[in-house]
Amino acid sequence: MENIAILGSTGSIGCNTLELVAKLRDRFRVVALAAGRNIQLLLSQVEKFKPKIVSLKGKEEAEEFRRKFKGQSIHLTFGQEGAEAVASFKDNDIVVSAITGIDGLRPTLAAVKTGKKVALANKESMVVAGSLIQAEARKSGAQIIPVDSEHSGIFQCLTKEQKENVKKVILTASGGPFFETPLEEMKYKTLEETLAHPRWKMGKKVTVDSATLMNKGLELIEALWLFGFEASQLEILIHPQSVVHSLVEMRDGSILAQISLTDMKIPIQYALTYPNRENSLLPSLDLSKLRVLEFYEVDEERFPLIKLARRALREGGSFPVALNAADEMAVTAFLKQEIKFSDISDVVRKVVEDHQKRKVRSLDDIFDVDRETREKTWNLLKQRY
Amino acid sequence: MENIAILGSTGSIGCNTLELVAKLRDRFRVVALAAGRNIQLLLSQVEKFKPKIVSLKGKEEAEEFRRKFKGQSIHLTFGQEGAEAVASFKDNDIVVSAITGIDGLRPTLAAVKTGKKVALANKESMVVAGSLIQAEARKSGAQIIPVDSEHSGIFQCLTKEQKENVKKVILTASGGPFFETPLEEMKYKTLEETLAHPRWKMGKKVTVDSATLMNKGLELIEALWLFGFEASQLEILIHPQSVVHSLVEMRDGSILAQISLTDMKIPIQYALTYPNRENSLLPSLDLSKLRVLEFYEVDEERFPLIKLARRALREGGSFPVALNAADEMAVTAFLKQEIKFSDISDVVRKVVEDHQKRKVRSLDDIFDVDRETREKTWNLLKQRY
Repeated sequence: MENIAILGSTGSIGCNTLELVAKLRDRFRVVALAAGRNIQLLLSQVEKFKPKIVSLKGKEEAEEFRRKFKGQSIHLTFGQEGAEAVASFKDNDIVVSAITGIDGLRPTLAAVKTGKKVALANKESMVVAGSLIQAEARKSGAQIIPVDSEHSGIFQCLTKEQKENVKKVILTASGGPFFETPLEEMKYKTLEETLAHPRWKMGKKVTVDSATLMNKGLELIEALWLFGFEASQLEILIHPQSVVHSLVEMRDGSILAQISLTDMKIPIQYALTYPNRENSLLPSLDLSKLRVLEFYEVDEERFPLIKLARRALREGGSFPVALNAADEMAVTAFLKQEIKFSDISDVVRKVVEDHQKRKVRSLDDIFDVDRETREKTWNLLKQRY
Repeated sequence: MENIAILGSTGSIGCNTLELVAKLRDRFRVVALAAGRNIQLLLSQVEKFKPKIVSLKGKEEAEEFRRKFKGQSIHLTFGQEGAEAVASFKDNDIVVSAITGIDGLRPTLAAVKTGKKVALANKESMVVAGSLIQAEARKSGAQIIPVDSEHSGIFQCLTKEQKENVKKVILTASGGPFFETPLEEMKYKTLEETLAHPRWKMGKKVTVDSATLMNKGLELIEALWLFGFEASQLEILIHPQSVVHSLVEMRDGSILAQISLTDMKIPIQYALTYPNRENSLLPSLDLSKLRVLEFYEVDEERFPLIKLARRALREGGSFPVALNAADEMAVTAFLKQEIKFSDISDVVRKVVEDHQKRKVRSLDDIFDVDRETREKTWNLLKQRY
């Protein structure tokens, strides 16, 4: 029996993880949950899975939870420190890190420091602090298993291949809802159209990032830190059917690919059960029913955030931190319908183009760049409201 | 530096292997060659690669070779014993087993008995004597690395995956030149049309087997013996672009696939360099140029040999021996333009349907079934001339 902690239990990855745990309950037990503000959902999760420690985003939510919670004794906490307490809870065997955005960084690091297995869905922490996280993992012996479908695919193709045999790694992108939308129509895309992702059911932030292709840009940077490749080895292919998640080309011309249904339960389950596998709870993928798999190059003119992400990938240092901060702010504004779809890439581009590169050696360095970038982004956003 | 012997050096696999060795000559050296009757080609191979031992199919060919050969001292031999001497030559580190048909069986076994690495392209030996070959490999410690592109793909996807995690294995088939030909037109297909394979350049026997899909049937049986799967785990998908060579579905719904250019040099090189890899001598496969990969179910009505192969796969025992013998005879007759294309499957079907299953415990058992089946097939063929 392995004990699981979930950071971000009420989000999309968190709910999928709990669905899996409910079906694999002879193998996994939930011991710790950290959530945001969805008290009602967390209450039902706590009643069902009976964790020992629970954290909420704010003190008020924690107090409201306390009033409504009818169950047995539970350790209740809140805020960044609460999430970190859940991440480093002593009974954990596996920590699923699935808080969205840079908010996931400190809890992810706390989990990595415990030396346990970390199923990493919070890509932003690798994007902004990959070097720090990997250094901590080397110290503690923590195993980081990616949950993003593309990185899970790479991980599965790579496990036993010597890295020097890899020529390049290709992450696929569905292309999102605007894969075929002409550039001049992009700006009129509504929130509703943007959130109608053709293939994946995901949280709102990552769904918007999929429509701008920023998600793929962040994943390039994540892949660099997860696997230690060179920026020049990382490529993107548009694959609208979204069943081939990634391809690893070896130096001898063989490409190994990972293919599966478009359902996050598959990479989550792989991360939980690694290095073993468990039977799938889903039907088999039948390629003869799908019949056609397509592959296209990315049009970087229509999806300029890919170009910016490539620049951040090459430059390194504080660039990925600035890119991520600007994108988080811009997407939040778009989700509140304060700016247009095309404003997201316009604003992020301005921020990244003006960014002065610095070294980031510590969490403090990262949060300094993050805060400054958010201020700049905020000023740019205000002009567009 | 590793020493290579090639059984079938003047065939398609043999020539591709020598082309690779010429380019990887700081790593490999040719020490032994066995050929059939193509004296001229063998002479030029011997002059270029300077092996220590050479074998030809018959005594006459060996004598003619002796007369024409101007080089230094060489050990010249012939016949089955000659091929076996090449296979078990003391200096060999790797034996490429690439004689077509059941003729390759004894030399393959001789190579396996030496305990060296065997790059296996002669699928028929696995089809008719998989159990014997694997028993000898266990005794000698020989490593058998498949050269067939599909099996090389499975091998690459599987190496480090525990076998109990595999749900099923899918071998792809291009569908050959008659993939879309209606059943009633099959019988009018000429030798020329049959040999015009749309994707692969191969020897004549395997090219005809690709047009009837018997090649895929033999490969199912080969896969069973190479990897130890159950017959029910093995499937076929038609994939006309022939770049995805095989797919391994794990129990958790993840499919690992091997993808590469349609060129036998890739799996040959992998077998030679395994467990390492060397740079490819070919360009990268660009999926965005190919753009579309298609997958279809097999139409067993139009390709009845698949049904027969499935039966031989399930029945085991002497069935695969009979299937293979009948097919070798029928294809030879078709290549001599003595029978029509549709006669191949008609004759093989009659032979297999009349076959009485026996146990095969030894090489003698296998050759008994082979000889008897060839006699029966011969009688059936004569009626159609």
